[in-house]
Amino acid sequence: MSGIDFYFDFASPYAWFAWKEFGRIARAHGRPVRYRPILLWAVLQARAMPPPLEHEAKKSYLLHDMQRSARFLGVPFRMPDAFPTSSHLPARLLLQLQQDGDARAVPFAEAVLGAYFEHNIDLRDTQALQRIGADLGIDPAWISAALSADAGKRLLQQANAEAVAAGVWGSPYMVAGGEAFFGADRLPQLDWFLAGAATAV
Amino acid sequence: MSGIDFYFDFASPYAWFAWKEFGRIARAHGRPVRYRPILLWAVLQARAMPPPLEHEAKKSYLLHDMQRSARFLGVPFRMPDAFPTSSHLPARLLLQLQQDGDARAVPFAEAVLGAYFEHNIDLRDTQALQRIGADLGIDPAWISAALSADAGKRLLQQANAEAVAAGVWGSPYMVAGGEAFFGADRLPQLDWFLAGAATAV
Repeated sequence: MSGIDFYFDFASPYAWFAWKEFGRIARAHGRPVRYRPILLWAVLQARAMPPPLEHEAKKSYLLHDMQRSARFLGVPFRMPDAFPTSSHLPARLLLQLQQDGDARAVPFAEAVLGAYFEHNIDLRDTQALQRIGADLGIDPAWISAALSADAGKRLLQQANAEAVAAGVWGSPYMVAGGEAFFGADRLPQLDWFLAGAATAV
Repeated sequence: MSGIDFYFDFASPYAWFAWKEFGRIARAHGRPVRYRPILLWAVLQARAMPPPLEHEAKKSYLLHDMQRSARFLGVPFRMPDAFPTSSHLPARLLLQLQQDGDARAVPFAEAVLGAYFEHNIDLRDTQALQRIGADLGIDPAWISAALSADAGKRLLQQANAEAVAAGVWGSPYMVAGGEAFFGADRLPQLDWFLAGAATAV
């Protein structure tokens, strides 16, 4: 049973809206997941595509759609004061936890998303990231070192480059067996696709 | 009970995917509908936004997503040979039928979408448009005159300008009581919103 790649930017509300439901769907179909943090702005820049909030009418629509989609999907959400922001710090941490085979990698990622989108931390706040890690038993000194380690920077560059190669142009962007699904609103299609693929195997 | 504006480009597959389900939802909530044909390229150009198929990765994703979404939604669909294409001719006809208060306006629009997305006509084929009209009892000579009438050109310019003023930046784009919904994948939210709005009144 092949896995599913979940490309996401920690600063993407739609990644947060999709997160738990995506996990539920993947588990229901017995599919392992590879969570791949990216910097969406860097991926879009590599494609010469504009950021999602570049154009005023679309920005205005999306800011309202985020609030409405959260209510519709039943996901707790408070627009962070620091939005949009750069998500390079938690991305570096997640990638290094994953490289270490640390079982707290995904719980840490989920806790960061929740802290940002429910409790208004700033993703650039290293002390907030340390507190989130400490709640999971991750040594604050390890986090402090990992935030500026070359390994984290290199892994994030690799993740961005891999995302470009995989066709990613948004967040969240899910790839299952070569089949790509963009956005929280494609989760029903992903579920349907996995059900069909399962019976076709 | 206020009405719902349905802005769409006749050449938009997602408008076709949304068409019948949108009509069902509007009827279920007792809301009158105003179908507003636009030229999406002109609306986007007015906003200095790129067309949806401008960037290669997004284009590749969308062309595949169209096929998959049609299957997922159970909507008959065959990618027209003439895609993308200009939809100014059926847009001019619909606007003039509406101006005349002709009850065949909406059935004509639906028949054109079906002919394009199921039966591979070209939206620039005036004879095909005449045949579709004739099936509904619309005089081919009226169609021929309306295709080049100044009134149709002026009404379409007005519809595009109105769409820009209403915040439209995609197709389909639905506006209900100031609340905007972009895309076939927002129909469940529209349905949910109308149910809530109805109980709130």
